[in-house]
Amino acid sequence: MIIVLRRDATEAQIAHLVETIQAWGLTTHLSRGTERTIIGVIGDERTIRSKPLEAIPGVESVMAVLKPYKLASLEFQPEKTRIQIPPVKPGGEPVEIGGPSVVVVAGPCSVESRDMLFDMAALVQKAGARLLRAGAFKPRTSPYAFQGLGVEGLRYLAEVRAELGLPIVTEVMDTRDVEMVAEVADVLQIGARNMQNFNLLRAVGRCRKPVLIKRGLSGTIEELLMSAEYVLNEGNRQVILCERGIRTFERATRNTLDISAVPVIRRESHLPVLVDPSHGTGIWSLVSPMALAAVAAGADGVMVEVHPNPEQALSDGPQALLPKTFEKMMSELGAVARAVGRTL
Amino acid sequence: MIIVLRRDATEAQIAHLVETIQAWGLTTHLSRGTERTIIGVIGDERTIRSKPLEAIPGVESVMAVLKPYKLASLEFQPEKTRIQIPPVKPGGEPVEIGGPSVVVVAGPCSVESRDMLFDMAALVQKAGARLLRAGAFKPRTSPYAFQGLGVEGLRYLAEVRAELGLPIVTEVMDTRDVEMVAEVADVLQIGARNMQNFNLLRAVGRCRKPVLIKRGLSGTIEELLMSAEYVLNEGNRQVILCERGIRTFERATRNTLDISAVPVIRRESHLPVLVDPSHGTGIWSLVSPMALAAVAAGADGVMVEVHPNPEQALSDGPQALLPKTFEKMMSELGAVARAVGRTL
Amino acid sequence: MIIVLRRDATEAQIAHLVETIQAWGLTTHLSRGTERTIIGVIGDERTIRSKPLEAIPGVESVMAVLKPYKLASLEFQPEKTRIQIPPVKPGGEPVEIGGPSVVVVAGPCSVESRDMLFDMAALVQKAGARLLRAGAFKPRTSPYAFQGLGVEGLRYLAEVRAELGLPIVTEVMDTRDVEMVAEVADVLQIGARNMQNFNLLRAVGRCRKPVLIKRGLSGTIEELLMSAEYVLNEGNRQVILCERGIRTFERATRNTLDISAVPVIRRESHLPVLVDPSHGTGIWSLVSPMALAAVAAGADGVMVEVHPNPEQALSDGPQALLPKTFEKMMSELGAVARAVGRTL
Amino acid sequence: MIIVLRRDATEAQIAHLVETIQAWGLTTHLSRGTERTIIGVIGDERTIRSKPLEAIPGVESVMAVLKPYKLASLEFQPEKTRIQIPPVKPGGEPVEIGGPSVVVVAGPCSVESRDMLFDMAALVQKAGARLLRAGAFKPRTSPYAFQGLGVEGLRYLAEVRAELGLPIVTEVMDTRDVEMVAEVADVLQIGARNMQNFNLLRAVGRCRKPVLIKRGLSGTIEELLMSAEYVLNEGNRQVILCERGIRTFERATRNTLDISAVPVIRRESHLPVLVDPSHGTGIWSLVSPMALAAVAAGADGVMVEVHPNPEQALSDGPQALLPKTFEKMMSELGAVARAVGRTL
Repeated sequence: MIIVLRRDATEAQIAHLVETIQAWGLTTHLSRGTERTIIGVIGDERTIRSKPLEAIPGVESVMAVLKPYKLASLEFQPEKTRIQIPPVKPGGEPVEIGGPSVVVVAGPCSVESRDMLFDMAALVQKAGARLLRAGAFKPRTSPYAFQGLGVEGLRYLAEVRAELGLPIVTEVMDTRDVEMVAEVADVLQIGARNMQNFNLLRAVGRCRKPVLIKRGLSGTIEELLMSAEYVLNEGNRQVILCERGIRTFERATRNTLDISAVPVIRRESHLPVLVDPSHGTGIWSLVSPMALAAVAAGADGVMVEVHPNPEQALSDGPQALLPKTFEKMMSELGAVARAVGRTL
Repeated sequence: MIIVLRRDATEAQIAHLVETIQAWGLTTHLSRGTERTIIGVIGDERTIRSKPLEAIPGVESVMAVLKPYKLASLEFQPEKTRIQIPPVKPGGEPVEIGGPSVVVVAGPCSVESRDMLFDMAALVQKAGARLLRAGAFKPRTSPYAFQGLGVEGLRYLAEVRAELGLPIVTEVMDTRDVEMVAEVADVLQIGARNMQNFNLLRAVGRCRKPVLIKRGLSGTIEELLMSAEYVLNEGNRQVILCERGIRTFERATRNTLDISAVPVIRRESHLPVLVDPSHGTGIWSLVSPMALAAVAAGADGVMVEVHPNPEQALSDGPQALLPKTFEKMMSELGAVARAVGRTL
Repeated sequence: MIIVLRRDATEAQIAHLVETIQAWGLTTHLSRGTERTIIGVIGDERTIRSKPLEAIPGVESVMAVLKPYKLASLEFQPEKTRIQIPPVKPGGEPVEIGGPSVVVVAGPCSVESRDMLFDMAALVQKAGARLLRAGAFKPRTSPYAFQGLGVEGLRYLAEVRAELGLPIVTEVMDTRDVEMVAEVADVLQIGARNMQNFNLLRAVGRCRKPVLIKRGLSGTIEELLMSAEYVLNEGNRQVILCERGIRTFERATRNTLDISAVPVIRRESHLPVLVDPSHGTGIWSLVSPMALAAVAAGADGVMVEVHPNPEQALSDGPQALLPKTFEKMMSELGAVARAVGRTL
Repeated sequence: MIIVLRRDATEAQIAHLVETIQAWGLTTHLSRGTERTIIGVIGDERTIRSKPLEAIPGVESVMAVLKPYKLASLEFQPEKTRIQIPPVKPGGEPVEIGGPSVVVVAGPCSVESRDMLFDMAALVQKAGARLLRAGAFKPRTSPYAFQGLGVEGLRYLAEVRAELGLPIVTEVMDTRDVEMVAEVADVLQIGARNMQNFNLLRAVGRCRKPVLIKRGLSGTIEELLMSAEYVLNEGNRQVILCERGIRTFERATRNTLDISAVPVIRRESHLPVLVDPSHGTGIWSLVSPMALAAVAAGADGVMVEVHPNPEQALSDGPQALLPKTFEKMMSELGAVARAVGRTL
């Protein structure tokens, strides 16, 4: 931690500051420059990160030297995390996220009915998707919108999963539901609006299931990694990050999909990263190009919405791919994956 | 709802669209312009608001005519909501939020100890604050930061409340804690990070206590009103909104306090609005000027953090006012309130 | 300047870095912490601010200790700048911006005709405005929109100014027009879209007329001060800053008026600050409350648009005040100004 | 144009509105719904787009049906614009932007010296770049930073261009310089800060040289197309758009590179689109992955900064690629281009 003092900081203020810091068990290092005096704080930065140093008289600004996350950092673990999702049926193959193969997670936005879920699951599986996505619990801006089938939806997910042997990613929205959802899901999804629902993060951190954390609409990459840190800190090391668009002034797309989050996270963290171009753009015709962009930039996979009849979808129809468009995207994705030295 | 068709929309597509909308029980109104055909949809807009019209072939864009909220709107209730917080001690005076008097909610960021809470509560009460704020449960970006005293903190809040007769605003973060917090709090606070935690909103909507909803860092004013709608829709009509800064590119302040949210909400809704300049700016020296600005713009009150010794605060010290600065702000606030025809 | 080294920085890299910095004539100060080595650079920070230190191998990050502006800073000039606009007619009173009195600049968005300009000028003058605003050159998003009357508009401005003795603020958009506009204007306005038109800033910096710089839609406060620095650095010390809203995700208002820019600038700079709630909100009914908020927060004045018949305005009608609303605002502004110890 | 009336709009207000619109030569179409009356305006929308309809009593909101740009739209010109840059030396090959081949524009940020420019130009040409980029005039946030070599820089550009036969893209910042820069440049660049410098846009619109417009830091895609419209409207049909990052709350990158602008522009406009991952990220190690992403998403080319010794660069060193990294990127770009059916 570097503390920059005000130009008019008095000797008494400096002495008080040094004393305060030393009382926290840390060493100080004073450097008097031509225009400012600076105090370097040596010791475990995490001890003082949350201390209100800016509130101490004479302090102008405080600059952190280290990143606030530890377990999520490349310094803590230089080799990339590879998450193994065990086969659903005995004798099946595990799905690896974070390895050389690019993984596609696909399915409808919501579980709407048993039949529709089964059809979509079979279709995306046949086209090469390795995991099925579909929400039983749906966070919706309006209380008057379809809120998901809930427990009934979970039951359909469990049935389709068992029949097809396709592992499931599904969202959990409430600490009270974590156990129930964890019984069905192969990967627990924390939605964008819950990226900083810290109680929920702690609760899934105590599960033994992989957790996929979606970046919040106003979440910085650093905050996304801090949310991962909550899960990691509870002992669950199976964390997958997912970029899904941030909120900006641009109105041509629902959100601004921040593809650069992929290489930024790669530089800072060992955790695998997926990209969701469906929510990231909100417009079906942009999904394919942005999925290709994500893989070209180094994403470990993409997560997309597919619907047999988007105009009748109960949620997010405008961003759903038709089965045919999805199949076309899969073949293009394969070509781009190979171009960057990966497989699909 | 207005549907704009693509220039190349075929007659078959138009016929299909009209049929689809009529099958939802609504009337259509076709208007062929020089460059575009437009379909007006007549009937309850809420029926089709969540229909994926953009997903239907031939549709270029869809424009809503009505606001998505109903119970929160001025159309539903033209007179302003005034929330009465009953006196804590028999014979005391109720506190009204949304009436002619501007209300100040003040206190430390977190409950840190019983003594400190008592001292601060007595101080802010003496200076004219009508409600005490202090967090027992604290949402923190880092799992390594102080997370609040939890249940112990609630107990201190209950004791100080009873002793001083000062009603309490405190945050609830988890659906599992709603009942417990509602036993102590006079007003339940939904924090900015939980503005779209819809299960939590529903849970507090079932309480009989007033609910204060803080605007999320990336929440639009419309979304804030939709979150209020969740609470109202469960039957709880005592909702207070709170502007506390949005996330923008500006780095000189922690957030950008959107004072214009106050008159915007006044135009759209009957719900009272507070402003929190402490979180809104993150810097103690900006709190006073921004509190004055909030009242000048028509806010029903302000919510500020006060700490006896900010440099030792366990959370958010840099934005806490010293008792003396708080007292000075109170007298300035009184003058501005009178200048705009209100009292403090 | 503080340079944080990568954890894996080699001794050779450190030696190279130290050598490079010393070759620029600066002193280094090495501090080896438990997790990172840090180099403090002592000497004139402006020398190395634009050096690409992040590009040197072994460097993790670079943190500036000083603000990048100098002439605009409170350190350079602790007392507030007061700008005197000389009286237009002999025997008239000068207008001071930055003094104890709050100044109102008002008028139509564009010069639309000589008569309309005269009427509006007379009206706002009578109601207490001290400067007339009106654009002869108008920056418009669309090439098909009214672009201002240009030279003809300037002529009308000159005539009305002379007749009424009301000084003029008007925009200059092109380096080629600076001299011509400076002959008429008492204050040269740099519009938001030109905040970083550096050639234009240099050109007005060489004039002897006060310059009002509007904050760009994506301009940080620091960048606004750097734009002022361009003008100051050319020798023109008469710079006025103007907050007029930044671009955020919020759509209820045209821009988000960042009132907190007022106290932030006050902490950092000696330059006076105005606020323009007309462009800042884009909606006439929000102009008054936001003007009051600006003055309560400490602004040195406000700048508002008034139009006799907004529905026929050639530009920005929806944000223009009717004369009556303007007069009402003036009386409310006076009350708030007095509440914060100023006059109107 | 669709006009939504307030619920309480009176018949007199409606009559006045209809009359006003008809006086502008347009036809109205009234539709009375259950909750709102709506007026459809039929005729040339451009006539009334800039009319202040929101300012007319009784109007709640106004919604445009058509896009505000015309010449830039796919409706105006369905086939993609291909821009031919004639060969510099007789017998050379033209460079096509917007055709099947992906074009790489590369070079140093600034012209720093004749030798360095020559070396970089030769290097990028050899590695496959088809155009040289380098700034003689540099817009810099600080007046104390290197501002470019100006006219001397232009001379070096002309010399290197002639020697190597490599066409030049360079920025023009001032209306007074347009002719001079147009004599040297093969493509005139309008920098991000000048995207809405309308006089400059008009000036380059009168040149017969292709114009590359960079998206502003807070420019929407629609506004970028409107800026193109200024150039097109002056008769210059050779416009290239360039995404280079927008300003958001994220701090891990200098800007947020909005790759989705590529497919959005493709849906709306016939103009070719480049992507600049150097300014878009500000960090050299992110340039390659984002360049690949841009091409995967359908960009017509990329624009990158290369420097022989970034740590001594006079501007933007941290984002410059070393020659070796650039060469590696070129081979990866070729693979991705082929994967999406294009060539390099």
